[in-house]
Amino acid sequence: MLPDRPFFDRLADAAKAETLPRFRMGIGVSNKLESGFDPVTEGDQAAERAIRALIEDAFPEHGILGEEYGTVGADRDYVWVIDPIDGTRAFISGLPVWGTLIGLYHKGRAVMGLMDQPFTGERFFAADGVTHYRGPEGERTLATRDCASLSEATMFTTSPTLYHGDIKTKFEAVQDKVRLARYGCDCYAFALLAAGHIDLVIEAGLKPYDVGGLIPLIEQAGGIVTDWNGGRAEMGGEVIAAGSAALHAEALAILRG
Amino acid sequence: MLPDRPFFDRLADAAKAETLPRFRMGIGVSNKLESGFDPVTEGDQAAERAIRALIEDAFPEHGILGEEYGTVGADRDYVWVIDPIDGTRAFISGLPVWGTLIGLYHKGRAVMGLMDQPFTGERFFAADGVTHYRGPEGERTLATRDCASLSEATMFTTSPTLYHGDIKTKFEAVQDKVRLARYGCDCYAFALLAAGHIDLVIEAGLKPYDVGGLIPLIEQAGGIVTDWNGGRAEMGGEVIAAGSAALHAEALAILRG
Repeated sequence: MLPDRPFFDRLADAAKAETLPRFRMGIGVSNKLESGFDPVTEGDQAAERAIRALIEDAFPEHGILGEEYGTVGADRDYVWVIDPIDGTRAFISGLPVWGTLIGLYHKGRAVMGLMDQPFTGERFFAADGVTHYRGPEGERTLATRDCASLSEATMFTTSPTLYHGDIKTKFEAVQDKVRLARYGCDCYAFALLAAGHIDLVIEAGLKPYDVGGLIPLIEQAGGIVTDWNGGRAEMGGEVIAAGSAALHAEALAILRG
Repeated sequence: MLPDRPFFDRLADAAKAETLPRFRMGIGVSNKLESGFDPVTEGDQAAERAIRALIEDAFPEHGILGEEYGTVGADRDYVWVIDPIDGTRAFISGLPVWGTLIGLYHKGRAVMGLMDQPFTGERFFAADGVTHYRGPEGERTLATRDCASLSEATMFTTSPTLYHGDIKTKFEAVQDKVRLARYGCDCYAFALLAAGHIDLVIEAGLKPYDVGGLIPLIEQAGGIVTDWNGGRAEMGGEVIAAGSAALHAEALAILRG
């Protein structure tokens, strides 16, 4: 038996119960360190424990790879890939562009995924070839935007300071061609791409749990996610996501090799 | 008679009725330009018309300075300073960190201010020495965070590409000293500062309407907003906002002159 959407919702709700009450607690970073009280780490760990407990109960035969508590059964057919709080810097800044990421891999390929932003009340979920969105305006299915070229594209990356050396040169060559480049959104940028609001996300140095829950959202909305050489992105690293094949090809020609 | 909080709410509600339905309409930037249909410009203009109509009706003796429709009566004692959609690049990217900014200046000093983010349902309002917040979690009054030094500070700026020449050197000298630097939030960063979630916002090239509605939010929550020489920031330009006097002084020593 495979998990269904209500099960993913239970996972996201369990995580939200641990993360949202700790968001914007108003404790300074310095105070946190001095007092040993760190709401983002507490929230990260508590949310991952809650998610793991539900998975282990319902799907004991599955593996789990989580940001906080490592990997169990990585060689099993089904492996859950979890980042309880992606975007911890946004979280500690009070900025609601962090998210809970939950992906399910089958033989190494991301087949189901979820991104939840508890403060805005937005939840993105993909399975069976459809990406669903629920938010303050209600519910709908998503499709990426058919952007024809970099010269018309809106691009996001977490920060230009991610890039050094050769990958910096390549990243900047793409950035110089786009219509609009913006920084600072972590997982939320991938969700905006799945929803057809933006066209391109480029990132470097990702872990599997930074992207595992997001790949299905984009692919099942009609977009493309690969590494910078055009291979699968499930293991992270340098990643490009595009809303259209034309845009992906144009950017990849600059990034690859 | 001076405007009260319900009047500011009427202004914000009128703007929201024009902006929120146009947010995330899913029209590509290129499509917008080709078809002549541009929801952000339409929303900007319609919201400003709605705000102006209410002000002109209730306070015909006041002046108005707006982003879209220019200035009327700039020499009057009371002047409203309006940016119907601050953060148009966030707006067209589907990112809910834009806002409607409404400030009231008395003899050149910002005395009342409002920032509204319709998608998240957050409204910030300052008058009579108190900064109020309403959001998904309810209502509270705000206080800035007492951060002791740049080495403990979280700083935001809209983009590192704002800065060139001498101001770039100075900006980077501050950025190098902070604990965490993030990009991309326009007015939302000032609101996070007023709420005590972050410590420092530095911007360059602001217009009066980019900052007029925000100055009261920060000052009446205990923070400091000036230009890079320590003067009043009502006319925009290079602006620094800090949650504590110590942080403001440390950053200004680098930025000024």
